[in-house]
Amino acid sequence: MKKIEPYTLPGFIEYLPEQQNRFDYLLKVINDTYHKYGYQKVDTPIIHGADILLAKAGGETEKQIYEFEKGDKKLCLRFDQTVPLAKYVAQNYANLYFPFKAMQIGKSYRGERPQRGRFREFYQCDIDCIGEDELSVNYDSEVVSIISEIFNKIGLKFVVCINNRKILNGFFAYLNIKNKQETMRIVDKIDKIGIENVISELEKIGLNNDAINKIVELITYKGNNEEKLNYLTNSSCDNVEFIKGTQELKNVVDNCKLLGVKNLAIDFKISRGLDYYTGTVYETFILGNESVGSICSGGRYDNLADNYTDKKLPGVGISIGLSRLFFVLEDKNLIENYPLQSPLLVLPMGNEQLKYSLKVVKILRENDIVTDIYFNDKKFKAKLNYANKRSIKYVVIIGEEEEKQNVVTFKDMEAHTQEQLDIDEVIKRLKK
Amino acid sequence: MKKIEPYTLPGFIEYLPEQQNRFDYLLKVINDTYHKYGYQKVDTPIIHGADILLAKAGGETEKQIYEFEKGDKKLCLRFDQTVPLAKYVAQNYANLYFPFKAMQIGKSYRGERPQRGRFREFYQCDIDCIGEDELSVNYDSEVVSIISEIFNKIGLKFVVCINNRKILNGFFAYLNIKNKQETMRIVDKIDKIGIENVISELEKIGLNNDAINKIVELITYKGNNEEKLNYLTNSSCDNVEFIKGTQELKNVVDNCKLLGVKNLAIDFKISRGLDYYTGTVYETFILGNESVGSICSGGRYDNLADNYTDKKLPGVGISIGLSRLFFVLEDKNLIENYPLQSPLLVLPMGNEQLKYSLKVVKILRENDIVTDIYFNDKKFKAKLNYANKRSIKYVVIIGEEEEKQNVVTFKDMEAHTQEQLDIDEVIKRLKK
Repeated sequence: MKKIEPYTLPGFIEYLPEQQNRFDYLLKVINDTYHKYGYQKVDTPIIHGADILLAKAGGETEKQIYEFEKGDKKLCLRFDQTVPLAKYVAQNYANLYFPFKAMQIGKSYRGERPQRGRFREFYQCDIDCIGEDELSVNYDSEVVSIISEIFNKIGLKFVVCINNRKILNGFFAYLNIKNKQETMRIVDKIDKIGIENVISELEKIGLNNDAINKIVELITYKGNNEEKLNYLTNSSCDNVEFIKGTQELKNVVDNCKLLGVKNLAIDFKISRGLDYYTGTVYETFILGNESVGSICSGGRYDNLADNYTDKKLPGVGISIGLSRLFFVLEDKNLIENYPLQSPLLVLPMGNEQLKYSLKVVKILRENDIVTDIYFNDKKFKAKLNYANKRSIKYVVIIGEEEEKQNVVTFKDMEAHTQEQLDIDEVIKRLKK
Repeated sequence: MKKIEPYTLPGFIEYLPEQQNRFDYLLKVINDTYHKYGYQKVDTPIIHGADILLAKAGGETEKQIYEFEKGDKKLCLRFDQTVPLAKYVAQNYANLYFPFKAMQIGKSYRGERPQRGRFREFYQCDIDCIGEDELSVNYDSEVVSIISEIFNKIGLKFVVCINNRKILNGFFAYLNIKNKQETMRIVDKIDKIGIENVISELEKIGLNNDAINKIVELITYKGNNEEKLNYLTNSSCDNVEFIKGTQELKNVVDNCKLLGVKNLAIDFKISRGLDYYTGTVYETFILGNESVGSICSGGRYDNLADNYTDKKLPGVGISIGLSRLFFVLEDKNLIENYPLQSPLLVLPMGNEQLKYSLKVVKILRENDIVTDIYFNDKKFKAKLNYANKRSIKYVVIIGEEEEKQNVVTFKDMEAHTQEQLDIDEVIKRLKK
């Protein structure tokens, strides 16, 4: 029979079991933490009508979309989870209760040029807290608490950088800048292109020296959060939006302190480019690896679903690009001490011990011990070898003697120790 | 701004939050049980090269495949998880250890004609235990134990029907039947077309009366498992394959008894149509709802990946069509008493209690209590109303008095009772 050479498409991921194990640990921490904060799972299809998905898309994103026809219908694979969520909330508006806290963990698709650490099929982990007409700014602080808890749990050294778009918008208005969007975009690029280039680009779009100097002073202002809030409060800027943004930012920072968040830093240069955001904005960086970019971003928006409904649905959300984050963590050797569970492996010495072994396995599983059993008829050395290759930590060996005495031999594969125990004692040790 | 009417494509599923909650409970039971038996997660891409996915496909399946081009490459969405797993194992053969116990829970795609309870995007939950050259038949019994544990946990009345293809194959050979595959396919249809039609179809393909009578006697033989095994043992059929199949079936049934399985029934008419299966075959039925068909099927095969490799990879696997199963359970009102957790909801009476409320929330979450907090500035009645609509079971109310006394008011929304408790007491009650 002719064989087909097996391959995975470029930009698509398949992990080997141990790697998958680590990935799943990350996924579980994120899932469980989102859940703990009262978020409810939303699972939207991966395929949508092109008219739905392309309602707002454009530019780079639209070029990357997987689009195809089935019957006479144009279909697309989702390129993020925000557009499908907007559709979902608009469509199910009458059956949802607001604030609606939605969590989404799933795959999205972009036909990007494949390159190191960029994927065409990737996991995103999103939360969005969506209000009806209004949404308290206090929800913005809760989001920081969640990010912080997740990255602390996985043992990362990180900082959540926060800003408020109203501060920049109000400040630009106060400086009589006409092209506020463009100014925002240029400021947003500072980490990529440096302050000198920001200044020259601002000059190019016609800002005067005074305005540029004041912007540079703001976005490069050094100090801790309290000093930065004081700087805003003492600013001569009397723009209403600026003042509102300052209050919101102070509110979020104060709440975060009460929630025990330690890794929050105000950063006036963050604006998240997109016009979509209107208030709080977040970016998260790994300390010492800031150059890989933000690993978790998001912000406050005024209207989740204005393509699909007249209802005003303000919200605040963040997204963790999990496939990319996992790549970075592995690449930078930042994954360590994950509490990975290998199953307990039961090794019957021979077929004669099958009955007793099945009895042992049954009891272990009834006690929720993750248990595997090796059934193939191999030499005992081959069985132990299999346990080693699979990085099994504990093995239970069952031979003639063990069956006679109604015990098992409990072997610690790492410590290279073994002892005879009764089954209850094995369960007790593993439950610790 | 012009609005686009939000819609979901026919055959695609979106659940409302409470429904999603029930679906997720099912998903978790399946996931955790698979895991407990030592299965390791495999997560293959949804998109593959057409040459990979269509290596073996044909007929109905091939017509239903979502196929498209990106660049100059023909791509397909996976229509099941078995073909991608075969590819994965062939490709990663050198880095896997056998028996390799793979679990896959994910979405697959078939452009079927949409009809009630049939979906174009659907979840499948698969396990496959794959050996290298050989795989003990004892693994076949473990699979029954897993199915049984899952359906017991979700409170279903069910039966796992089991047979062995070798018995049918050997019996047909003993009867000198030339067209064994076709005979198998006709026998497999008995539940759909009835015994009369089976007989007339067997006549049509040229079987003589004696052969037909003996087949009918076998597949309609009544008795418990022991009686059926005796019937086989006492059969005059001396075909080697028949005898081997009988031994395997006896082995599996005996092991299942040791593993505490109570819902297993031998059924000689089951064969799972596909040529793929070579030994044990399984089908699972909901008692009283047999007509919806098997809710979990699978079997033993000789070669997982012969399209991609020369290695002999025998295995045994089952699949739960979760989206379909969930539809049936809801449709037949078989979902009850799912232990669904609603978050604890903290309701500050007013903004003055924000600080104390955040402190309370922080402590609750540190103790792993799933906790939500309502921040919007609404009348208290509206806040309670929100809790009711979301089916929240417990509410924590925080007013001036509670803050002064460093307690909270703990309200049971179902029992309509409330009392003042300190936070530790709340945690203690919820952890129970």
